[in-house]
Amino acid sequence: MKQPDCPLCQTDGGHILWRDAFSRVVLADEPDYPGFLRVILNAHIKEMTDLSPADQVKLMRVVWEAEAVLREVMQPDKINLASLGNVVPHLHWHVIPRFADDPHFPNPVWGQKIPHGNRHAVPADLAVQLAHAFNRRLAPAPETEAR
Amino acid sequence: MKQPDCPLCQTDGGHILWRDAFSRVVLADEPDYPGFLRVILNAHIKEMTDLSPADQVKLMRVVWEAEAVLREVMQPDKINLASLGNVVPHLHWHVIPRFADDPHFPNPVWGQKIPHGNRHAVPADLAVQLAHAFNRRLAPAPETEAR
Repeated sequence: MKQPDCPLCQTDGGHILWRDAFSRVVLADEPDYPGFLRVILNAHIKEMTDLSPADQVKLMRVVWEAEAVLREVMQPDKINLASLGNVVPHLHWHVIPRFADDPHFPNPVWGQKIPHGNRHAVPADLAVQLAHAFNRRLAPAPETEAR
Repeated sequence: MKQPDCPLCQTDGGHILWRDAFSRVVLADEPDYPGFLRVILNAHIKEMTDLSPADQVKLMRVVWEAEAVLREVMQPDKINLASLGNVVPHLHWHVIPRFADDPHFPNPVWGQKIPHGNRHAVPADLAVQLAHAFNRRLAPAPETEAR
């Protein structure tokens, strides 16, 4: 079911923090937003209402774990959640830690920049801390269990 | 639990299409985006992970019904879903019908405008059609049932 022209079918879409057969969590490459996560469905499906009710909940449970991991590791002032997909119509959720002094706050990250916004200072091993938190909260991937 | 300084505690937040004791669906006043819906939790709660797991799913079921209603009534090219709350930290979901020729497509509605974008033509009774679809799909509000 992989689409040849879809970047989320053809690549991981970021640095993998956790994955299973159904979905994956990646750390996005967004220099202004350390900790910007994406929860990506592994299948090429466009809208939430194209999923079965059980799969809708299954995907959101990963989104909410991503929110919980960011709150635990980064203590943001607000979490932003969004499923847009206008450019890449393959279900993926943006899970974004927002800080009152970040480059767009209180605007959405897609809105107007605030001139005095700052990149939030984060520990050098942020990706490791996030991955540990995911693997503690969610079952490890089947391929990891089998080793 | 109503907050005196919260507009979503103090007002409906738009034209009510459907409501029950837990949440409500309003048609937002967004002139560029006819059919822009908001699903608003009635309680003043900030993040999805502040809700119980059962209430997380309960709220999302209304979001997905909103997506289904928009697809049924307006046949958009894409649905955008977002819970931001940087300005008003009271849980509310934006459910936005997007069209390939709309004022921002394929950017998010909070992003850069496309000069040649169009307001999508809609029937004059759009709000009535949406409200009918919600009331057919979701149980009527308790106060309506009692009448």
